[in-house]
Amino acid sequence: MARVLTPRAEDFPRWYQDLIAKAQLADNGPVRGTMVIRPAGYAIWERMQAEMDARIKLAGAENAYFPLFIPESYLRREAQHVEGFSPELAVVTHGGGKQLAEPVVVRPTSETVIGEFMAKWVDSYRDLPLLLNQWANVVRWELRPRVFLRTSEFLWQEGHTAHADEADARAYARKILHEVYEDFMVGVLGIPVLVGLKTARERFAGATRTYTLEGMMGDGKALQMGTSHELGQNFARAFDITYTSAERSVEHAWTTSWGSSTRMLGGLIMCHGDDNGLRVPPRLAPVQAYVMVVKAGDGVAEAAAKLCDALRDAGVRVALDDRVDTPFGRRAVDAELKGYPVRVELGPRDLAAGNAVLVRRTTGAKTPVPVPDVVAGVLAALDADQKTLYDEALARRESHTVSVETLAEAIEAAATGWARVPWSAVGAEGEAEANAKAVTVRCLRRADGSVPDSEDEPELTAILARSY
Amino acid sequence: MARVLTPRAEDFPRWYQDLIAKAQLADNGPVRGTMVIRPAGYAIWERMQAEMDARIKLAGAENAYFPLFIPESYLRREAQHVEGFSPELAVVTHGGGKQLAEPVVVRPTSETVIGEFMAKWVDSYRDLPLLLNQWANVVRWELRPRVFLRTSEFLWQEGHTAHADEADARAYARKILHEVYEDFMVGVLGIPVLVGLKTARERFAGATRTYTLEGMMGDGKALQMGTSHELGQNFARAFDITYTSAERSVEHAWTTSWGSSTRMLGGLIMCHGDDNGLRVPPRLAPVQAYVMVVKAGDGVAEAAAKLCDALRDAGVRVALDDRVDTPFGRRAVDAELKGYPVRVELGPRDLAAGNAVLVRRTTGAKTPVPVPDVVAGVLAALDADQKTLYDEALARRESHTVSVETLAEAIEAAATGWARVPWSAVGAEGEAEANAKAVTVRCLRRADGSVPDSEDEPELTAILARSY
Repeated sequence: MARVLTPRAEDFPRWYQDLIAKAQLADNGPVRGTMVIRPAGYAIWERMQAEMDARIKLAGAENAYFPLFIPESYLRREAQHVEGFSPELAVVTHGGGKQLAEPVVVRPTSETVIGEFMAKWVDSYRDLPLLLNQWANVVRWELRPRVFLRTSEFLWQEGHTAHADEADARAYARKILHEVYEDFMVGVLGIPVLVGLKTARERFAGATRTYTLEGMMGDGKALQMGTSHELGQNFARAFDITYTSAERSVEHAWTTSWGSSTRMLGGLIMCHGDDNGLRVPPRLAPVQAYVMVVKAGDGVAEAAAKLCDALRDAGVRVALDDRVDTPFGRRAVDAELKGYPVRVELGPRDLAAGNAVLVRRTTGAKTPVPVPDVVAGVLAALDADQKTLYDEALARRESHTVSVETLAEAIEAAATGWARVPWSAVGAEGEAEANAKAVTVRCLRRADGSVPDSEDEPELTAILARSY
Repeated sequence: MARVLTPRAEDFPRWYQDLIAKAQLADNGPVRGTMVIRPAGYAIWERMQAEMDARIKLAGAENAYFPLFIPESYLRREAQHVEGFSPELAVVTHGGGKQLAEPVVVRPTSETVIGEFMAKWVDSYRDLPLLLNQWANVVRWELRPRVFLRTSEFLWQEGHTAHADEADARAYARKILHEVYEDFMVGVLGIPVLVGLKTARERFAGATRTYTLEGMMGDGKALQMGTSHELGQNFARAFDITYTSAERSVEHAWTTSWGSSTRMLGGLIMCHGDDNGLRVPPRLAPVQAYVMVVKAGDGVAEAAAKLCDALRDAGVRVALDDRVDTPFGRRAVDAELKGYPVRVELGPRDLAAGNAVLVRRTTGAKTPVPVPDVVAGVLAALDADQKTLYDEALARRESHTVSVETLAEAIEAAATGWARVPWSAVGAEGEAEANAKAVTVRCLRRADGSVPDSEDEPELTAILARSY
C-alpha cells in the first residue's frame, strides 16, 4: 500500500495533521484557531455524546442550556477565575448595530452564569443537590491552536452542581470522575487513563480541588482527557448561592463543575491511530462494519445489501460502500484512514466460493469467511478488537512509564514517556523547575492507585510528563 | 383548583409568560434577549432534536459543525444577505486581550461560512449533492425579545445542501419541508401546520424561494414554525461553489438551507397549552406517564415502583414522584403545569381496592383502573390524546380561518384569526398595506393545498394573519 500519511516515527505532529485532513475529520476554520468538524469527525463526536450523556443522566444530572453571552462583571466576582480566564476571552462590544453599554464575554466556561441562576433556584436544603449539565460551545482564544487539542472554540459538556455540604460535593465530583469519565474512557474509548488529583499549580481557576484523567498518546506525551472540580464555596460566595438548612440556618452551598470536550477526538486519534490512519474502538465507532462491494457482478450488490440487513439486525452499526465506479484500492485506503473496525469485502470471485472477506482494522488480518458466518465473525471481531486496542494502549503506557526517585531523573524520563516519582521529591519548587523544562505534574496518586483528597497526604506519587 | 396562571382569555401574552415561569421551562438570561432553558424545557427540546435528527438523517443529510465566529467580510459577499442580517449582528472586536485585525461576527446563520467550505469540498459532479446539517446556537440581536419566540441567542438546526441543478435543489428543499418538518410537526408536535410559499417580501435574505410551515396559536395568531429555502446560485456565486460536470464543463452549484429552532417550544406552548398549563403531545413528551405516590402507606411505594417498571417495559417514558413530604395538591398542580400526558396516582385507599387512578391531561378525566390494566390504559390514553390535541388544534384553525375576497376583509379577519384570500386581490402593494396594519402574508398556496413554485402562478390563495 502506498504511503498515505507521514509515518508517526518520522514526525508525529505532522502525522496527526495529515490524518485529520485525509480522513476528513476536520478543517481549520477561517477565524484563527477555530475548526470545522466534518461529518466523519462529527459522527464520532455524536457517539461520544450519546455514551457520555447516558452516563451523566444515570448519575442524576439533568441537561439545561445557559446563555453564550456573559456580562463581563460576572467573571470579576471570583478573583482566581477572572485571573485565569481573562487572557483567553473573546469580547462582544457591539450588538444590533450599537455599542453595548456593558461589553459581554463569550463564555469560556459557565460557572459564573450558572452560579447566578443556582442562587435564584436554590432556596431550601430540599432543593439540593442541584445537578445540571449542558452540551455547548465555549470560546478560549488560543495563541497556538491545534485542531481538536487546542481550539479557540470547542464543543463540550460542562456539569455544574450545588450541594448542601462539602462531603456530598466531593462524593459527586468523584462519582462523575469515575462513573462517567473513567468508565467511558476505559470502557468505550479504550484508553487506559490514569486518574488523579491536580497540584495547586495545575488546578482549575477558582477550584479547591481538580481531579483529572490523563491518557498517554502514541508519542509518550500526556493528554488531559477530562477534569472534575470541587469549587468549595468560592462560587457560592461570589454568586450568593445559599440555602436554608433543616435547622433553619442560612448556609452557602458547595459546588462542583466537570467537563470533557472535542479534545477527546484528539486523544482518540493520538492514542489509537497508526501509520495507515485512525483506528476507532468498536464500542465507539459510528460505523462498526463497513461492507464493501469490491466489484459489480452476479448477485454481489444483493448479497451485500442482505449482509447489511443481517448485521443491522444483530445490532451492528453498518455502512454500505457500493461505489464500484471508484477504484477499490482507493476505497480500501479510505476505509483504513477512517478507521472502521471491520471491513466486509464482497466480490464476485469470493462470492462464487460462498465467502466474504473479513478485514480487521486493528491488525490488518484478512480472513475469508463463509457468508452465513459473517455476522458471528463480525461480532467476535468487534469484541476482540475493543480489547486489543485497550491492551495495546496499556502496554505502551506501561513500557513508557518509569519509576524514579529524583526530580532530575523524572525530567529526563519525561523526554520519552511518563515518570512516576515520589511527590515529596518534587514539591511546588520542583514542579516549577520541571515546568521550565516543559514537563508538568500530570497528577498525584496514592500508592494503591486511588485518588488523594489533598497534595499534603504522605507518600503520594506524582506523574510527570510532557503534555498537549 | 386555585388559579395558578393568568387565564388565556384575560391576557394571552401574560399567560404565556406565567406558564413558562411556573412550569420552570425557561428564565430570561442576564444579557438582554438571552434565555436560560431549564431542565423541564430542555428535556422537551431534546425530544424535538431526537425526532428531527432521525428524519434529517433519513433524508440523507449528515451532521457537521462549523465555527461560531465568521469573518465580517464573508457576510458582505452576498448583498441581500448582509442587508438582511446587518441590523441583528453581534460583533466580537477583542480576542485574547487584543483588538482583532478584522472584527468577527457571531453567526446569525451559517450560509456564508458553510458556502466557503462547500467550495473547498466540491470538485466534481460526483461530490453532489452535498447534504449537511448542524445543531448549533445562533445570535440575532433582538430589540423586543420574548422567550422562545424571539431571543438574541437561540438553538436550532440549520441544513445546508449543494446540488448539481435547480430541479434537484428544489426537490430537496421540498423533501425537507414535507418529510422532515411537516411530518414532525403534524405527527409528533400535533400542530396542523399550513405549508406554503413565502412572498418576495417575506423571503429569507439571499433566497430565491422560501417555503414555510405556519401554525395557528391559541390566540389566532400565526407562528412560523420552520422554513426551507432555495438559494438559487446566489451563494454558489458569492463563495465560488463550482463543480465539473460529467461533460467536463465548470458549473456553479445550486444550494438550499433550512432551519427550525427552539421557537418550536413557543409554538408548542401557545398551540396546546390551556389555563392549567402546558399539554405536551404524548409522542413528544419526555415524560409520558407520571406515576405519583399520593400518600405513603402499606406497599404503595413498592406498587408504584413496579408500575414504573411495567410501563417502562412497555416502552413508555416514565417518571416517579414519591415526594410524599410535599403536599399532593401542590404536586398535582405542578404536574398539570408541566403537561405530562397521563398521571397514574397511587394511594393506600385506591390500592386497597386494587386500583390506581389514571388522570388524562387533555381532558382532566380521572378514571380508577385495576392495577393490572394500568399499562394498557396508559398506552390507549397516549394514543388517543395525541389525536385529541391535533384535532383540537385543527378545529381551532378551521373555526378561526375565514375565506374572503378582498384585502380589506382579510385585514379585518386577521384581527381574530386567519384570512384566506385570493393572492390576486392582495399583490405586493396590498401586502405593504396589510403590513402597515401589523398583518402579514404568511404564505401562498394552490387551490388544492399544494405548495406553489412561484407567486406568479395563477389562482393562488394567500393566508393573511397577525403573527409572532
